[in-house]
Amino acid sequence: MKKIVLTGAAGNLGHELRATLASMAAELVSTDIAEPRSELLANETWVKADLAEMDQIAPLLEGAEMVVHFGAIVDEKPFEELLGPNYIGAYNIWEAAHRHGLRRVVYASSIHAVGLCENNRGIDTDEPHRPDTFYGLAKCFAEDMGRMYWEKRGLEAVCLRIFSCTPEPQNARALGSWLSYRDLRQLVTRAIETPTVGFTVAYGVSANDRAPVSNARVGFLGYKPQDNAEDWAETLLPQARPDPADLAQTRVGGPFATVALGESGVAGIKALSGK
Amino acid sequence: MKKIVLTGAAGNLGHELRATLASMAAELVSTDIAEPRSELLANETWVKADLAEMDQIAPLLEGAEMVVHFGAIVDEKPFEELLGPNYIGAYNIWEAAHRHGLRRVVYASSIHAVGLCENNRGIDTDEPHRPDTFYGLAKCFAEDMGRMYWEKRGLEAVCLRIFSCTPEPQNARALGSWLSYRDLRQLVTRAIETPTVGFTVAYGVSANDRAPVSNARVGFLGYKPQDNAEDWAETLLPQARPDPADLAQTRVGGPFATVALGESGVAGIKALSGK
Amino acid sequence: MKKIVLTGAAGNLGHELRATLASMAAELVSTDIAEPRSELLANETWVKADLAEMDQIAPLLEGAEMVVHFGAIVDEKPFEELLGPNYIGAYNIWEAAHRHGLRRVVYASSIHAVGLCENNRGIDTDEPHRPDTFYGLAKCFAEDMGRMYWEKRGLEAVCLRIFSCTPEPQNARALGSWLSYRDLRQLVTRAIETPTVGFTVAYGVSANDRAPVSNARVGFLGYKPQDNAEDWAETLLPQARPDPADLAQTRVGGPFATVALGESGVAGIKALSGK
Amino acid sequence: MKKIVLTGAAGNLGHELRATLASMAAELVSTDIAEPRSELLANETWVKADLAEMDQIAPLLEGAEMVVHFGAIVDEKPFEELLGPNYIGAYNIWEAAHRHGLRRVVYASSIHAVGLCENNRGIDTDEPHRPDTFYGLAKCFAEDMGRMYWEKRGLEAVCLRIFSCTPEPQNARALGSWLSYRDLRQLVTRAIETPTVGFTVAYGVSANDRAPVSNARVGFLGYKPQDNAEDWAETLLPQARPDPADLAQTRVGGPFATVALGESGVAGIKALSGK
Amino acid sequence: MKKIVLTGAAGNLGHELRATLASMAAELVSTDIAEPRSELLANETWVKADLAEMDQIAPLLEGAEMVVHFGAIVDEKPFEELLGPNYIGAYNIWEAAHRHGLRRVVYASSIHAVGLCENNRGIDTDEPHRPDTFYGLAKCFAEDMGRMYWEKRGLEAVCLRIFSCTPEPQNARALGSWLSYRDLRQLVTRAIETPTVGFTVAYGVSANDRAPVSNARVGFLGYKPQDNAEDWAETLLPQARPDPADLAQTRVGGPFATVALGESGVAGIKALSGK
Amino acid sequence: MKKIVLTGAAGNLGHELRATLASMAAELVSTDIAEPRSELLANETWVKADLAEMDQIAPLLEGAEMVVHFGAIVDEKPFEELLGPNYIGAYNIWEAAHRHGLRRVVYASSIHAVGLCENNRGIDTDEPHRPDTFYGLAKCFAEDMGRMYWEKRGLEAVCLRIFSCTPEPQNARALGSWLSYRDLRQLVTRAIETPTVGFTVAYGVSANDRAPVSNARVGFLGYKPQDNAEDWAETLLPQARPDPADLAQTRVGGPFATVALGESGVAGIKALSGK
Repeated sequence: MKKIVLTGAAGNLGHELRATLASMAAELVSTDIAEPRSELLANETWVKADLAEMDQIAPLLEGAEMVVHFGAIVDEKPFEELLGPNYIGAYNIWEAAHRHGLRRVVYASSIHAVGLCENNRGIDTDEPHRPDTFYGLAKCFAEDMGRMYWEKRGLEAVCLRIFSCTPEPQNARALGSWLSYRDLRQLVTRAIETPTVGFTVAYGVSANDRAPVSNARVGFLGYKPQDNAEDWAETLLPQARPDPADLAQTRVGGPFATVALGESGVAGIKALSGK
Repeated sequence: MKKIVLTGAAGNLGHELRATLASMAAELVSTDIAEPRSELLANETWVKADLAEMDQIAPLLEGAEMVVHFGAIVDEKPFEELLGPNYIGAYNIWEAAHRHGLRRVVYASSIHAVGLCENNRGIDTDEPHRPDTFYGLAKCFAEDMGRMYWEKRGLEAVCLRIFSCTPEPQNARALGSWLSYRDLRQLVTRAIETPTVGFTVAYGVSANDRAPVSNARVGFLGYKPQDNAEDWAETLLPQARPDPADLAQTRVGGPFATVALGESGVAGIKALSGK
Repeated sequence: MKKIVLTGAAGNLGHELRATLASMAAELVSTDIAEPRSELLANETWVKADLAEMDQIAPLLEGAEMVVHFGAIVDEKPFEELLGPNYIGAYNIWEAAHRHGLRRVVYASSIHAVGLCENNRGIDTDEPHRPDTFYGLAKCFAEDMGRMYWEKRGLEAVCLRIFSCTPEPQNARALGSWLSYRDLRQLVTRAIETPTVGFTVAYGVSANDRAPVSNARVGFLGYKPQDNAEDWAETLLPQARPDPADLAQTRVGGPFATVALGESGVAGIKALSGK
Repeated sequence: MKKIVLTGAAGNLGHELRATLASMAAELVSTDIAEPRSELLANETWVKADLAEMDQIAPLLEGAEMVVHFGAIVDEKPFEELLGPNYIGAYNIWEAAHRHGLRRVVYASSIHAVGLCENNRGIDTDEPHRPDTFYGLAKCFAEDMGRMYWEKRGLEAVCLRIFSCTPEPQNARALGSWLSYRDLRQLVTRAIETPTVGFTVAYGVSANDRAPVSNARVGFLGYKPQDNAEDWAETLLPQARPDPADLAQTRVGGPFATVALGESGVAGIKALSGK
Repeated sequence: MKKIVLTGAAGNLGHELRATLASMAAELVSTDIAEPRSELLANETWVKADLAEMDQIAPLLEGAEMVVHFGAIVDEKPFEELLGPNYIGAYNIWEAAHRHGLRRVVYASSIHAVGLCENNRGIDTDEPHRPDTFYGLAKCFAEDMGRMYWEKRGLEAVCLRIFSCTPEPQNARALGSWLSYRDLRQLVTRAIETPTVGFTVAYGVSANDRAPVSNARVGFLGYKPQDNAEDWAETLLPQARPDPADLAQTRVGGPFATVALGESGVAGIKALSGK
Repeated sequence: MKKIVLTGAAGNLGHELRATLASMAAELVSTDIAEPRSELLANETWVKADLAEMDQIAPLLEGAEMVVHFGAIVDEKPFEELLGPNYIGAYNIWEAAHRHGLRRVVYASSIHAVGLCENNRGIDTDEPHRPDTFYGLAKCFAEDMGRMYWEKRGLEAVCLRIFSCTPEPQNARALGSWLSYRDLRQLVTRAIETPTVGFTVAYGVSANDRAPVSNARVGFLGYKPQDNAEDWAETLLPQARPDPADLAQTRVGGPFATVALGESGVAGIKALSGK
């Protein structure tokens, strides 16, 4: 591949993906509104840009085959604050990808697109949308848009509904929801290297014993996670404070299922960790 | 009921609903970015306002029980043009309704939220989103938001996926897709008077012999359309220029299934009418 | 037909069925723990019997082709009080029917077998059980037993999930849930006269505009209700006191969805009627 | 339309369709292996031909828009006897239609393509195949072929799963399964005049109170049957000899569900009529 | 955890669970109608009690968080014999758990709740009830009750549909249906330690190559069985006496699918083992 | 087992199965229209026969318990060329198996029976037919016939929808679709040794990371493939020439999804391999 564009390259996950992506194309263009967290790679270019501004974003995609779109505010915020980076930003990516003839968007969607689904009934990748936050609603918007760009314009997309992607699982919920960095890299690699994908949704979750969602319908991607949060069960399971009436514990969206719309979910996530 | 707010009151459908809504509440506040098409009713107030501006919209909802949200650009346009009235406008309505403690949003969604579904397989109201245009994508966005406001904040919503609402059916496609004004009024009446609705989606279509969608799952609404486009079949059916390869004829979205994203669908609709 | 047995013949619904059943067989044996409400019919015999006592029940079924089992306590009660008439009583009927070689049980099941299902998603007759009360649980028990007797012993059953069967609709909920006496008689007639039924579940509801359930899957029964609660809408609809957080209004079981387990639902039903 | 071809034009149903089809096109070519049952219509040509012989069949379709394929042996027979007319004959029609660029095949499929489905669970038009005879298996073969010709070659097809098409209902089963000649004509008319159909399956059954199948998924066809076998219920229902263990009574295929493979079902049909 | 109650502690499976449960709580109260099979554990108390007697059962649950309900007659018997221990006993457990504010019931349900399902179509945990015996019907009753207690009273439940739990697989059927004691212990452990479960059904089956059921929908439980009956295949497979017409071989309930209602299934199980 | 018959014994797959089948029965009768590829085994007999000729085929099955039917033309051809070996041949096998009282047919069906299904939505074994070629249509025909022979005559069948069975995976598509010879042998072994199967469909695919289909519903067969095409990924993946508009890449049928009906697919398969 000649060129890949990575957005959100200074975010936790984007940063983690730089080396992987650089190895898959002759040229990697990394972009973020912030500075890079580390030295650039040999074939990497860094462009500071605001996702919400089409004229900053569109030129970056010229000549690329794929864009790996991980840029966004990664927390619940008032709609007005997410509108630019998360909503318009997604539109700008898909539209720019179309205008420049890219083949595919690999998108960091989120479990929060279906965050209000019950975690004890085993949802598949064809589950209808059921967002838990404005953050999750932006993912619904982008997924629906991605399906439309595929059907109307032939632009492929893989939407990765990422759960809890951290170096190590952080709390009892993560025994089911953890996605290791290693598995994230594999998942993004598969999303890029699979010859054709059309429009595809996949859950971003490791091979956790307690994973509440299934990728059985997208076996063709060949995603075979290698990590398992169960290795932390002895430590994390006792931290749970079980409350069956607490949606933060019974819906796949976790704390976002109960956070007030527009309010940061960070406190909830911390609370779940018993800290 | 004390007060109902109607948006898009100067639009074709909004205008048609004014008298009905005025009869259902002590006070009707009608709003549009344009002037009213006719004299105000006795208990009606008119406020010119821009849906995209929260500070213009929010105050109108104060003290109301329900808002009937029909305001939007009713055509395919570039995303940037729809963003204000159709996307942000919908957000403003739901958010304002929440802030002022309204009980329900009755929303003019559209068949274009599922416009790329095949018309020969009989979709139900639980069909997942499959938008055909940025216009339809705005309806997906609002429907997903409506579900979330219901689940997170207890604000009810009825999303009416309106097909082809015109005084008379216009073309062969409308033999299936027509919604008469009389049936529109009944549908909106039911959406208002039904004691509880939670989050509900219903198709806005008359009792056409050839209707390709089903409201069987939302029987509780009691919507029993009385008109039937078949009365125009002798005239309209011969106008069809059958082409099984033309998505405009085989998808429920009709001409919007083939219109270029961002380009007006008016020409396509006219073409379909053989004019 | 030579002989039909009717249980619960002194109950509201059983009483209503006596003449219909008497006209369908040479002999009708009516039974109840109470006295008949009116003169016996020419070919009718009355036997006072306790459903919970096999030796009182079994002999009645000898020589019969079908038993129409409407006998039960028709209210929520502590499990211990329902155990005899509603649980053991149902077992006694099916077992006695088997022992005496009857062909079919026509059973007054109830909407409360699925009473906790949401009324805005249109359940079919194949909806899994979701009882709202010990009363409804007894219906689940009997339906499952009925399926088993059919599959293991070839004893047919039609389980009629009766909604709100009263002379006239009583409250706003009944606009969807009403079953007229006339339609009840038709439904029971069809359940008897249909040549073969295997194991079948059907909803007992009139042709109400607002019916929240569907008999589409059991069209073979030919049940075509003739009454429509909508005739009472003008009076009853205004009595509603809408509260979308009240399960009594949003689940098909109505007041039984919120009644405390084991406590009579009569008060709740009256409350719903605004009396 | 310029030209329609009708096969099986000397059969009970084909004969019945001649006038209708003649009125829908400038030219009707009727074909059968037998002579016509009545005088030719003004714009009708009759060609004796063997469906199993491509060189006899293919030329007939030249210049036609549609072929209405009703020709076949209409009874269960050994596979070897059905192979020519029912299997190869169907292939010849589809292949000839493709070679001559026809737009659509309207096919007399049969309920026997799904004849072993239980009649008390309400099958839809998307029910998978479950043939009851070699006769029904030929319908499965042709339907699968029709789907393939549509998907690979753009040749449309409407497969009408005809039940019991006779002047009057013949037996108790027909209370559910009857298709009147008038409704047959409407159904075929709709199958022809509907502008686009892609690949569509519809049940050929009248508006019988006791119809065990549903056309709800193909509402777009606008088929609204007008006759109802219930008018014969008083006479026919008492003729039933109920036996719940008899598949001829409990499967939609009726007597064909129990007939030995390869043996004529005529006796079974007569037996059902109690004659 | 402070206290767990185990019923059926002198049964094969209950006995096997004592040590596991004792290690998970400060106090284990074991109960059975019989004497313990072995010495009590350090933190274990034994109370002889009859499940059918509320006043014997209820006091045991005071102060407990969970009850692991394995007590029942474990064979097919006449309904009258199962009524006390299996039906009323289950009610007593759920009701006592509610009265004393327990958090959860872990219930030994059984494959016989769905025993008449075909074993070649791969049932999931959301399969509707289809009992094969009065024994299985009691499990249906308890599962439905468990769902209701969860929805009405917030009492959680995990219903384990246990297959064939023995030290070693006993016959060819067990190549699919075996549950090892080790896997049973894991399954019960997961059912207890999972922070929230709401109402959940899971199959109790080892990681057998030939398992005919799936726990894919309840992945959140983290049950990962370690044993595989395939290790016994060489010995057991040749013992099969294949008969495709024998429901004991083709339904998941095995010999219970054919046993006469009310008659012990022990002989059938032995017969299957070829002994 | 006394006797197994293998058809297509000189084909690639049939040849591969001879030793396995010979080890499972006292007698193996191998047949093909061609000569054997290698020396006969000790208990093996070879009979040259034409599948299309019943009098050549039927006698071979006398005294056998099972027939493993792998004989057919294994490529797309005009219908007329496939009619004998693939259609009539399949009928001859099932009919002869019935006449001689065989217990089971193990049939080499093919992925092409559902070849037009999208490979990014994860089809199960209950997916309805959607053939891509006359070759695949023959598999649909035989599968439907197999279901009918099971339901009408009690003759069991396992239909193996074989994907790409070759010594090594040949191209990028085969990373999902490969079936190794070792896994083929296991699959056929399971299809034979499983005591009862009724009518069962299973996919013939190895344990490929990228397998697009699922055997989850037929777990009872115990098929646990051991090979994984992923071992060839480094070599094969780069050979892909991704084109999301090419049905040969996006449908499970691969090149057969685009081959012209009746034209050999060999060129397409080679093209896919980049050779």
